[in-house]
Amino acid sequence: MRIGLDMMGGDFAPTEAVKGVKAFLDTVAADVHLVLIGDEQQLLPLVAEAQLDQSKYSVVHSSQTVGMNEHPTKALKEKPQSSISIGFHLLKNEKIDAFISAGNTGAMMVGTYYSIKAIEGVQRPTISTLVPRENGTYGLLLDVGINADCKPENLVQFAILGSLYSQHILKIDNPKIGLLNIGEEEGKGNLLALATYPLLKENKQINFIGNIEGRDVLSEKADVIVCEGFTGNVILKMAESFHELALRRNIEDDYMKKFDFEAYGGTPVLGVSKPVIIGHGISKGLAFKNMILLAQQMIESKLLEKIKESFVSNEKQ
Amino acid sequence: MRIGLDMMGGDFAPTEAVKGVKAFLDTVAADVHLVLIGDEQQLLPLVAEAQLDQSKYSVVHSSQTVGMNEHPTKALKEKPQSSISIGFHLLKNEKIDAFISAGNTGAMMVGTYYSIKAIEGVQRPTISTLVPRENGTYGLLLDVGINADCKPENLVQFAILGSLYSQHILKIDNPKIGLLNIGEEEGKGNLLALATYPLLKENKQINFIGNIEGRDVLSEKADVIVCEGFTGNVILKMAESFHELALRRNIEDDYMKKFDFEAYGGTPVLGVSKPVIIGHGISKGLAFKNMILLAQQMIESKLLEKIKESFVSNEKQ
Repeated sequence: MRIGLDMMGGDFAPTEAVKGVKAFLDTVAADVHLVLIGDEQQLLPLVAEAQLDQSKYSVVHSSQTVGMNEHPTKALKEKPQSSISIGFHLLKNEKIDAFISAGNTGAMMVGTYYSIKAIEGVQRPTISTLVPRENGTYGLLLDVGINADCKPENLVQFAILGSLYSQHILKIDNPKIGLLNIGEEEGKGNLLALATYPLLKENKQINFIGNIEGRDVLSEKADVIVCEGFTGNVILKMAESFHELALRRNIEDDYMKKFDFEAYGGTPVLGVSKPVIIGHGISKGLAFKNMILLAQQMIESKLLEKIKESFVSNEKQ
Repeated sequence: MRIGLDMMGGDFAPTEAVKGVKAFLDTVAADVHLVLIGDEQQLLPLVAEAQLDQSKYSVVHSSQTVGMNEHPTKALKEKPQSSISIGFHLLKNEKIDAFISAGNTGAMMVGTYYSIKAIEGVQRPTISTLVPRENGTYGLLLDVGINADCKPENLVQFAILGSLYSQHILKIDNPKIGLLNIGEEEGKGNLLALATYPLLKENKQINFIGNIEGRDVLSEKADVIVCEGFTGNVILKMAESFHELALRRNIEDDYMKKFDFEAYGGTPVLGVSKPVIIGHGISKGLAFKNMILLAQQMIESKLLEKIKESFVSNEKQ
């Protein structure tokens, strides 16, 4: 398999991207060929210095870079030679099987929508976050920001996408799906939650266990928690701030360390027809390595085929 | 001033309520007379044992109690002799100047709406939470649950109510008001936030500083953070779970200890014409003491008069 990596994206590019590539190649034995997309002048010396196995990667030159604060659509249009534009071009034309970037998130989303499109039946692709739990496993929370306003049907689709991701990537059997809400009982909530509950309850594709309150987001009560992207984004960023708090206050705790969401790498865009992974702007070597690993797992597990089947069978119901 | 206290509300009533009364009377020198509403048979022995200053309190007998899980409207209708019903009756008839209960929250809200009503001009009364900050001061977050679906104008009113509370009770000069959102810039957010931003910006009664992201909820960036009650409730409960986490994992940190939201006492219902304070069901002595203190501060600071003036002048604009 061939995994494409935007070497120019993120605050510490390309240095940390190269570190991630090296960490991946040094520690993961897999039949993976990495396609490193970036400015050769900056990239080649770093790659040479890193002494990577030359059979495991190739470099594709990009002469432009989309800045972190550029307007997404405008930037992609005006910079066809940017690493992000080239990455999507390669992905669309099947020169790579997955594309990863820690660059401009908006540009990544626009590129995803325009180049590779949503899976048939998926109304809104979504992004998620891993939720560390005290027993060492990971839950999943989605949407965490690209769908700030949702309809009940969107949340049901997030539940299906999250369920498949939890099963095939996080290896959780029959994942428990919870609806983020402000009370435990059916009949609690805002209009969206009230309308979503019965739809989740009647859906045969998922194992719906009911409402999940804020206090249970970090518990093992549900393996997948669905919400609109507004609340999801607020709690993700708040959880991140707890990690910074722990660092600032010298709180030494193994579990609190897991709130270092940047280390997880990035979030796949779920519901689109090819693997696209978007990293935090502040991604470091470990995050890049983890994103490559995730891309590999998404390809090996055939997650996207499973999502496609699921939405096709759903349409036929 | 006369402050009424429901001695039968909460999981540890009346024992912890009596402890709170004792702690208040023993430590706070104030011209406060407490009206203890509860079942005399249970209450009198505890009160005798506590050796309270007899000039500082009186007991009003209630023969019924509203259970924590009873249907609010039904319970209030069927139990006119309950401590909550009697409390609101006393408040309405000016026999007490404030009413406090850690009992059934729904019944407290229904009692509030029916007995004492909203201040003229206030569309939706609201509840808030204190937000502990590392510098020792407190921010305010509202709404935290009773208004799960809001219109932009509701959020503007929460901002005004929160601003006055922050100024007169938390003693913060010219409090900075933030809108909880998923991006820093104007033009980010869900439909509600997008529509609320310009209204806050143009409002002359508050010091609006812009959007506040999840990562800044605990910071000093804003003194008052407004949001609809869905997101507010989720983050409050999530923050509470961090406190439990710290306890469970033996994390010794002074700041993390402040996430013990129960200790703060309770939340006033802001926007109604008399002081009503609703406590957590699990309130202990300290929480009861703090609720009495808060009632005293609300009366002394003439907060409700200030809110009334503010909404009257707002109407005239």
